[in-house]
Amino acid sequence: MRSHKHIAIAGAGLVGSLLAIYLAKRGYRVSVFERRTDMRKVTADRGRSINLALSNRGLRALEEVGLADEIRRVAIPMHGRTMHSVSGNLSFQPYGKQGQFINSISRSNLNVVLMNKAESLGVQFYFEKRVASVDFEKTALHFQSPDDTPMMFDAIIGADGGFSAVRGAMQVTDRFNYSQHYIEHGYKELTIPPAEDGFQLEKNSLHIWPRESYMLIALPNIDGSFTCTLFFPFEGKLSFDTLRTPDEVRSFFQQQFPDACQLMPTLVDDFCNNPTASLVTVKCFPWVKNKILLMGDAAHAIVPFFGQGMNAGFEDCRVLNHLLDKNADQLENTFAAFQTERKQHTDAIAQLALDNFIEMRDLVGDEKFLLRKKIEAKLHELYPEKWIPLYSMVTFYEDTGYADALSTGQRQKQIMDEVMQTPDIKTNWPSLDFEKIVSKL
Amino acid sequence: MRSHKHIAIAGAGLVGSLLAIYLAKRGYRVSVFERRTDMRKVTADRGRSINLALSNRGLRALEEVGLADEIRRVAIPMHGRTMHSVSGNLSFQPYGKQGQFINSISRSNLNVVLMNKAESLGVQFYFEKRVASVDFEKTALHFQSPDDTPMMFDAIIGADGGFSAVRGAMQVTDRFNYSQHYIEHGYKELTIPPAEDGFQLEKNSLHIWPRESYMLIALPNIDGSFTCTLFFPFEGKLSFDTLRTPDEVRSFFQQQFPDACQLMPTLVDDFCNNPTASLVTVKCFPWVKNKILLMGDAAHAIVPFFGQGMNAGFEDCRVLNHLLDKNADQLENTFAAFQTERKQHTDAIAQLALDNFIEMRDLVGDEKFLLRKKIEAKLHELYPEKWIPLYSMVTFYEDTGYADALSTGQRQKQIMDEVMQTPDIKTNWPSLDFEKIVSKL
Repeated sequence: MRSHKHIAIAGAGLVGSLLAIYLAKRGYRVSVFERRTDMRKVTADRGRSINLALSNRGLRALEEVGLADEIRRVAIPMHGRTMHSVSGNLSFQPYGKQGQFINSISRSNLNVVLMNKAESLGVQFYFEKRVASVDFEKTALHFQSPDDTPMMFDAIIGADGGFSAVRGAMQVTDRFNYSQHYIEHGYKELTIPPAEDGFQLEKNSLHIWPRESYMLIALPNIDGSFTCTLFFPFEGKLSFDTLRTPDEVRSFFQQQFPDACQLMPTLVDDFCNNPTASLVTVKCFPWVKNKILLMGDAAHAIVPFFGQGMNAGFEDCRVLNHLLDKNADQLENTFAAFQTERKQHTDAIAQLALDNFIEMRDLVGDEKFLLRKKIEAKLHELYPEKWIPLYSMVTFYEDTGYADALSTGQRQKQIMDEVMQTPDIKTNWPSLDFEKIVSKL
Repeated sequence: MRSHKHIAIAGAGLVGSLLAIYLAKRGYRVSVFERRTDMRKVTADRGRSINLALSNRGLRALEEVGLADEIRRVAIPMHGRTMHSVSGNLSFQPYGKQGQFINSISRSNLNVVLMNKAESLGVQFYFEKRVASVDFEKTALHFQSPDDTPMMFDAIIGADGGFSAVRGAMQVTDRFNYSQHYIEHGYKELTIPPAEDGFQLEKNSLHIWPRESYMLIALPNIDGSFTCTLFFPFEGKLSFDTLRTPDEVRSFFQQQFPDACQLMPTLVDDFCNNPTASLVTVKCFPWVKNKILLMGDAAHAIVPFFGQGMNAGFEDCRVLNHLLDKNADQLENTFAAFQTERKQHTDAIAQLALDNFIEMRDLVGDEKFLLRKKIEAKLHELYPEKWIPLYSMVTFYEDTGYADALSTGQRQKQIMDEVMQTPDIKTNWPSLDFEKIVSKL
């Protein structure tokens, strides 16, 4: 036991729970405060839990705490994107090389594994405890309940998500830079139920119905169902605002997503009753005030289009753990080093996630774009160490920081913009001077 | 009386009070809620009130409500900048043409005039009433006091400043874009007292001690004193962080601002006891939710370096009044039109204000920059309708929107960057082909 310090974590979500494990393993006394009820005690909601894409960065962090194998057993590998055209044609684009894939995982399953593990290490969870305010001088939390006395700690970590109460308290202190920016699209979750004998779509794919200004996607669940998400504008001619009646919904889906539509018996019901949720990017700085630190979505909420929100949060935990090693568990130095090291990377993934929405909803349906991807895959095959496509750097190369992936990706884009100007590139691309292309990097 | 609608204004500052006048004149019932005490009942603080630069946009709004002449009588015209070098050399740069000037005005004097006028028109002011929350469905305000019952209105306008409570309530509603960004400099107010026979520095100037990475400025007050403001980094080698002891302060001022220093008998006292304040830019959108609207700093707080914060807020009032005319006092249409029309301009002045800090603290001490200004003044003299320098557009041309000033200014900058490349420009500039330069615009 290196330390008897007591650390409070606000938020028992994915990042808060994994962080609790890391800290408990280091010998800290850890208390986690969660405003919701204990999800392990709530009746499961008929297998329609939201799923997430777990990739290398997240897995690496899970590996470090010895949970990767357990999680892999309940994950579904997705080896690439299956694009669905309006006429029902399918095309497949692998995410990386043979053996590289991302994993569809149930958020609640993963969260429960993490909480159970944390508890087994002595972490104390407090549910239905909503942070009301933070005392930055006394390193204390006040809770929303008249009879609650404030609790003091050696440090507090706000891992309480995109609408963090700890960050809210920080926001009204002086010189706290902050932004929240919503995109013009919202999303709605829909369902493709399992067939009697398994999955109704190819199981090991992330399915996309790209329609330029909007898209439908589907990720597999272990019960054989798919959770579909429609990303769609809030306002405008074709939007959540204008698509209101059951008839309008049905006819829109029949026109735009005919193959998906026929697999969705509860479409109209789901559409009319499920909430329409918004998508926000949150940036702030500093992440540290005195002995209080923000992590995960509380520090850097991003849009979901690169499948990196959770992965970035898990990487936060791994980086913090590494910096605790490096700083001999001196918390204030560690927190300072953490924000300095990490901010550039989370800013980068915020940008990459916004950019990838355009790629997913529009470009993946574009022939020229697919050719570009094919050429990049060839470059990667020929020069596996030198030319790594952006998607791969972000998803499969966890030793490459997001900021480095972003800047290399920008250089690659410039080079590929030029390459794509080659006359008759569509037919001539196999005879490109690949070595010369790579040498421009 | 066109209307018996009841409008609540949060904030009895400059914008809230002027807005109350505008609305009362239109026949609205107006209630203003201010969290501070009534400044008219507090003992005046020895003439050291903060002063502001009132220019054409603000004056135009005051004119429309019949207050411009009264305000002009207590304003001190400032015809240009007087730059003070370290060695005490003075140089003067006029703000515009003969007869164009900005006005140093006491914030509290101006505020009192506005409140008195509003009250004379039947506006009801409530002091020490702090907005605790806003009910966006019922258009109601809740106040911070256990026995206060909420009050309902036909509309609520948040004119409650850079740390607006109304905006705070809006910020936690869905899809509200928001950013607050602090610059790395803070400021501290200091004083040059009056001489027995008047002003110790040239009265009709804004004084600047530009020192590249920081600056001191001074604006005249009607009692003969000057309010000085040091804009200085919070952190770093030379910063508020490192300048702490009386000796350090005195020796820094003696080295950097010797001529000002000898006029400041209370320098060390002021420096050590006055607060160090921060400087923030706030942007948000939408400004409207249901029947609740944000205006002034609550919607768009900016840094003070273009002297436009108050002027932009007063212009808000004038634009809103104009749109009420245009929309026959239909409030929801007016509010929607207001944010659509106004956002581009307040974004532009936010940018211009940040840019002008660099000009004031650094460039005004630069010979090449002063030559550039001289050439632009010549262009303006020769083609008074075609080439209007950026500072003039913003300050003296109230019919030009801030966004238009910004974009024209950017074109002018490109043209002038080229002009300044002319060989021997320092001596040859009078023989430039001015007509050709103007034609590039």
